[in-house]
Amino acid sequence: MWKWLILVFFQLSVFDCAVKNNNNRLVANRNLGDNGSTCKAKYWTLVKYFDGFPKNTDMTIREENLPPLKNGEFLAKAVFLSVDPYQRVVGSFPDQVKLGEPFLGQQIAQIVETKNPKYPVGKYIRAAFGWRSLTISNGKLSDQDLAVLPDYGNLPVSLGLGVLGMTGMTAYFGLLEICKPKTGETIVVSGAAGAVGNLVGQIAKIKGLTVIGIAGSDEKGKWLKEELGFDHFINYKKDNIDEKLKKVAPQGVDCYFDNVGGEISSSVLYQMNDFGRVTVCGSISAYNSPVKPKVTIVQPAILFKQLKVEGFDNTRWANRFPEAVKQYLQWIREGKIKYQETVTVGFENTFKAFMGMLKGENRGKAVVKV
Amino acid sequence: MWKWLILVFFQLSVFDCAVKNNNNRLVANRNLGDNGSTCKAKYWTLVKYFDGFPKNTDMTIREENLPPLKNGEFLAKAVFLSVDPYQRVVGSFPDQVKLGEPFLGQQIAQIVETKNPKYPVGKYIRAAFGWRSLTISNGKLSDQDLAVLPDYGNLPVSLGLGVLGMTGMTAYFGLLEICKPKTGETIVVSGAAGAVGNLVGQIAKIKGLTVIGIAGSDEKGKWLKEELGFDHFINYKKDNIDEKLKKVAPQGVDCYFDNVGGEISSSVLYQMNDFGRVTVCGSISAYNSPVKPKVTIVQPAILFKQLKVEGFDNTRWANRFPEAVKQYLQWIREGKIKYQETVTVGFENTFKAFMGMLKGENRGKAVVKV
Repeated sequence: MWKWLILVFFQLSVFDCAVKNNNNRLVANRNLGDNGSTCKAKYWTLVKYFDGFPKNTDMTIREENLPPLKNGEFLAKAVFLSVDPYQRVVGSFPDQVKLGEPFLGQQIAQIVETKNPKYPVGKYIRAAFGWRSLTISNGKLSDQDLAVLPDYGNLPVSLGLGVLGMTGMTAYFGLLEICKPKTGETIVVSGAAGAVGNLVGQIAKIKGLTVIGIAGSDEKGKWLKEELGFDHFINYKKDNIDEKLKKVAPQGVDCYFDNVGGEISSSVLYQMNDFGRVTVCGSISAYNSPVKPKVTIVQPAILFKQLKVEGFDNTRWANRFPEAVKQYLQWIREGKIKYQETVTVGFENTFKAFMGMLKGENRGKAVVKV
Repeated sequence: MWKWLILVFFQLSVFDCAVKNNNNRLVANRNLGDNGSTCKAKYWTLVKYFDGFPKNTDMTIREENLPPLKNGEFLAKAVFLSVDPYQRVVGSFPDQVKLGEPFLGQQIAQIVETKNPKYPVGKYIRAAFGWRSLTISNGKLSDQDLAVLPDYGNLPVSLGLGVLGMTGMTAYFGLLEICKPKTGETIVVSGAAGAVGNLVGQIAKIKGLTVIGIAGSDEKGKWLKEELGFDHFINYKKDNIDEKLKKVAPQGVDCYFDNVGGEISSSVLYQMNDFGRVTVCGSISAYNSPVKPKVTIVQPAILFKQLKVEGFDNTRWANRFPEAVKQYLQWIREGKIKYQETVTVGFENTFKAFMGMLKGENRGKAVVKV
């Protein structure tokens, strides 16, 4: 019962700072508060560092009053929040995020009030403002942490968190620069129905590879094969991965784009060909384990097949992001890349969306529509 | 009792084909056999594929009569046999070596009879003839499998199996081409007192790195530090690796030259710096396990530190072997590289030497003097 009351409370109180469309200009109406000048922001914060799978009690929503803008500042209203696997990792480490402070993450926001000509009202930005509803910024952030979105035409701005954002950059550079796939080769993608995985498989198809996706439900498999053009699908919850992989990749595996780690990855590594390349993009199987899990040793596979296994952070190629965005836009126009989002509605459901994503409930990029 | 009888039998019968020095030319005396023309070769062969740690009953010595040489052939008498960790691996796989056939491996042999001008009597060769006492060859083998040794001057020919052979090539290229060490960086070497490990550490010192060796006895540690110039030593049988490594490498680890795999490697990987490089040269901790062991997952370390982990086979750089041999000879002359061998005497003790090496009883390169 109290849960519903809290939910109702949230829904009534999320937008304290109303935004009006006034002659085609969005303006924040700061006159709703009792004192006529406050504007309340909500943010999600950690109450307790994650230990094991995140629990409802690990996070809560807090509020803060926002002061009037100073010169050089702008006020941005979150439109979409990003929920991503890496947030599970940083949520365990005091050196990454502090209890009580806004939880970190990327968002697409719209500028609703400004005293900074570089950030005019109405523009959409991608910003590392965390899971916050409203944010004041002086704009002094790196390009990775704050960027005005280019005009996406008739594409949704949420793609700035997905295929045209960090997710897309991760798939593009992690595949092309680390796996270095060649036409005719075979690639396995784990977490294939996830935000990054589905894009990796689609790019690999464009590049002429045989693409094998691993995911956790036949429904996802159907989507990967029938809609995205993957060649084969392995359901890690039902199939014997070793056997199924031998069957669908009798020629062996040349590239492995790994989002999950764990036993799935050990299985794949032992079926790779000489000089195979492995992109370690995620290790979600280990994120929710209170201690590092023990899995089948991988070094013998790396040794005997002369594999190259590499982890990365997409910011390594930050200066080439525009190239990737341009390429994605072309592929989307040509129908070669299909973007997919799982949208959860409501700021108050952000943590729920996050936990659902960790459980693999999403298909494609998981975002929250504020 | 029967073991001793076998041993006596072996010792009496190992050299059926006597070799005489006749006016400074070595010649095989084929007149010892009953029929006046046979010459008996001994070879070690698998009776049973290795499963778990090799057992005395897994291998045996067999004999065969060697026919007279045909034109183009030569007869080579083994002088040193190589015992190496990789032989444990191939000894488990029917596609690598057949039961009953000579067990594979490298040897230094001297040519004792010839009908091939390219291989004159008296010359030393390095050859992939396996654990055999005498071998007839037509010389039609790749450079890796058969090469006349250059003149080593006053250095022992056994170095053709060690620092000037595959062992040295593995250390040289595995370190320089995969770890790509830079002056001032910190490297950890596991299996540091082994054939490859001790050379890696010495080269790393020449290149100006801080060198930390991991091995299994304080005696080895003393040797590594006091004679070879390693900066620090961790005894994996006594020390808590995580803690000791934090203490001796508070600056983190940039390169890891891995000969062992297993928990030692998991520990090291989690203490590496961003963009660290890992050479996977061996995985001896897993070789004797009947099933692949489970160890602490490494993918999160690879991911979060953007590590590059690569396995290799030194033949990748075969065209550059002369460069490495030349460099080693210079370093040895300058006293910058000290070579160390653990020599077991007697063809019949080859398997024992092999098992001892697998247990880490050797210091430096393990060879058998026939």
